[in-house]
Formats: sequence, C-alpha cells, structure tokens
Amino acid sequence: MFITFEGSDGSGKSTQIHLLEDYLRKNGQDVQLTREPGGTDIGEGIRQVLLDMAHEKMHARTETLLFNAARAQLIEQEIRPALSGGKVVLCDRFADSTVAYQGYGREQDIEELKRLISFATGGLSPDLTLYLDLPPEEGIRRKLADYQNRLDVQGLSFYRRVEAGYREMIAQEPQRWVVINAGRSLEEVHQEVVRAVQDKLTALAPSR
Amino acid sequence: MFITFEGSDGSGKSTQIHLLEDYLRKNGQDVQLTREPGGTDIGEGIRQVLLDMAHEKMHARTETLLFNAARAQLIEQEIRPALSGGKVVLCDRFADSTVAYQGYGREQDIEELKRLISFATGGLSPDLTLYLDLPPEEGIRRKLADYQNRLDVQGLSFYRRVEAGYREMIAQEPQRWVVINAGRSLEEVHQEVVRAVQDKLTALAPSR
Repeated sequence: MFITFEGSDGSGKSTQIHLLEDYLRKNGQDVQLTREPGGTDIGEGIRQVLLDMAHEKMHARTETLLFNAARAQLIEQEIRPALSGGKVVLCDRFADSTVAYQGYGREQDIEELKRLISFATGGLSPDLTLYLDLPPEEGIRRKLADYQNRLDVQGLSFYRRVEAGYREMIAQEPQRWVVINAGRSLEEVHQEVVRAVQDKLTALAPSR
Repeated sequence: MFITFEGSDGSGKSTQIHLLEDYLRKNGQDVQLTREPGGTDIGEGIRQVLLDMAHEKMHARTETLLFNAARAQLIEQEIRPALSGGKVVLCDRFADSTVAYQGYGREQDIEELKRLISFATGGLSPDLTLYLDLPPEEGIRRKLADYQNRLDVQGLSFYRRVEAGYREMIAQEPQRWVVINAGRSLEEVHQEVVRAVQDKLTALAPSR
C-alpha cells in the first residue's frame, strides 16, 4: 500500500507522517518512509542541484524536470521494491505536489505536467493520499511566523492558486483522496489519519 | 539560425563543429558553440550527477529526465538569448540524440520521449541538423580501436538500432536534415558541411 501526504507548508505533514509511521510499526506493519526530492543517492545529488546551483537562473521547466528525475529514481530504486516486498510506503509529498505547485501555482500547463509525471512514475499512483487541509494564510503564519513582513500579496495569491488546484485534483479523484482538517490538535489529526488508513487497508484487503 | 550536429560516436562531429565555427567566424558571423549535457552552471551540475553518481543504479527514465533538465536550462539560458541576439548557434548533439539513443537504442517509447522533449525545449527545434553518416562498425572502430575485444554482439545491435532510428527521423523531416557521408577526409566533409549551412542561410535570408 502506497500512501502520500499532501498539503500546504505548515500543515503538519512531516509530524503526522512520523506519528503514522510509529502507529503502523506498533501494529506490526512493515513500513518504509520516503521523501521527495531525494531519498536515493542519485536523488540527493539532484536535490543538491535544485538547492545549490544559482537558483535565480533556474528555469521553471528545468526545476520540474529535475523533480521528476528524482521521482523516477525514487520509485524504481525504493518505492516499487518496497511495495513488492509487502511494505506500507509513506511518502511526504509526491506527484500531486508538482501539479499543485508547478502547475496551478506557477501556471505551467497542467496536461503537459501530467504527461511528464506519467513518464516519470511509469504510471505508479498512490492508493491513498491524505490532504492536510489548512487555509494558506494559516500555514504561512505557522511556518513563517518571523517573516510575515516579507510576504507580499503575490505570495499569498500563489498559495491560494495552489490550494484551489488541490481542491480540483481532489474533486477529480475523490476515491483516492481523504481531506483532513489540519486546524486541530496533533492528536485529533492523527486519529483521523489513522482512521483513513485503516479504512483503506480494510478496503484493499483480500476478502476471505 | 540554430544548427545541430548528430551522428554516431566516432563520426567526427566535434572536429567538424569546430571547423564550421572557425569558418563562420572568419566570414563575419557571430557564433555560439554549446554542448549537451552541460553548457550552463546548472547543466554542469546535472552532468556531474549523470557521470558521478552510482551509475549502475540509475534508471533509464531518470537519465532521460536529467538530460532534458539540462537541455531546458541550456535553451533558456544560452540558446534562446543567442538566437535573439542574431547569433548562429551550433550545438553538438541535441534532442534527436535522445530519440535515437534512449528511444530507438534503449527502446523507450518514442512518442512519450517526443512529448517530454517538447516540454523541455518549449517547442524549439533546429533550423538545420547535419547528420554525419558513418556505419556503426566504422564509428566503433575509430572510437574504440583499442577496445575491440570488449564489444559484443549486443553492443553492435544497439548502435544499429540507433542508426536505423536516425534514418527514420530523417525520413520524417527531410527539410531539416542534411546527411553527410562522414567516411571521407576531414576537408571533404567540412566542405559539404559548409555547403549545407550556406544553402540554409540563403534559404532563410529575407528576400530583398
């Protein structure tokens, strides 16, 4: 079973993915946690290029192709083998982030991006995607409390486009997504994450 | 004007591209020479990943995406500005190499590759592509004279698929390609390269 976490920065994805990992391990599941970009030696090399090299000169298409190169490698080297071995794979962001941020946010062509992702993933799609739902203003406040002054109107409108993009993707594939209100306590959010995962595990389990 | 050189390894592309560069400069043209992958700081970083990182683990799709990431950056940072500035841009291998080697050679899906290339290039295509034509056996002999014993039948069949791929691409877009017999002297090949470029420059020049 392949589970991905999506949502705005500051929505608590990283915390929740670790809480879920602990929960699943305690319940005897074999779990593998991965992250994008990176997660493999080659992916970490790509991550360095994304982070280190004259960022201001990097074109949006270059960035998109690099994210997808790291993704292709992560899938072939880590995710597919883990899934074949019966593990539950948890991934902090996956292809939906490319569509949300590069597509809706940076306004690259959505259909082109989807074809590119389909090439990179070889068609692999998550069984379940948990969307940690938080208004962009709130995510920004949580994440960047010290830097509020640097956020301009364009910044917020970008995050609003990203959020609207997620809503559209959720509407298109409701069977894959579960929307979780991330504006509550860690424990409340965790309980809802666990419920969504249990429901999906039950649905996917072979009937006796 | 955007001119690319294609052909098998050992066909003399690098030598011929430098001879053409000298010729064009002496005739008062403003010339820019580029190479793939690389050609920009970001591209050189990507080249390092392609060359340095645990090669044997790199998946074919990862490799294809990395080549195209370097290409996207080269186009936006170097090629488009040079073309806008009225320069003649010479490139040692370009998108056709991806189709020939990754597509026909490694047998990835050709249409998928073409869509990926179209994304990476933003639709930019060469005005003229010179194919330095040499039987694969001869290219291998020239390039790897000392290593002949290491070449197995599979190696040669790969290069034969690549060559057949080039022939198919040439047949599909005959107006863009000029095939040059690379089995002759440097000077004879150079003269034919110059003739092909002059013909194209004349054809593209605004009529008076």
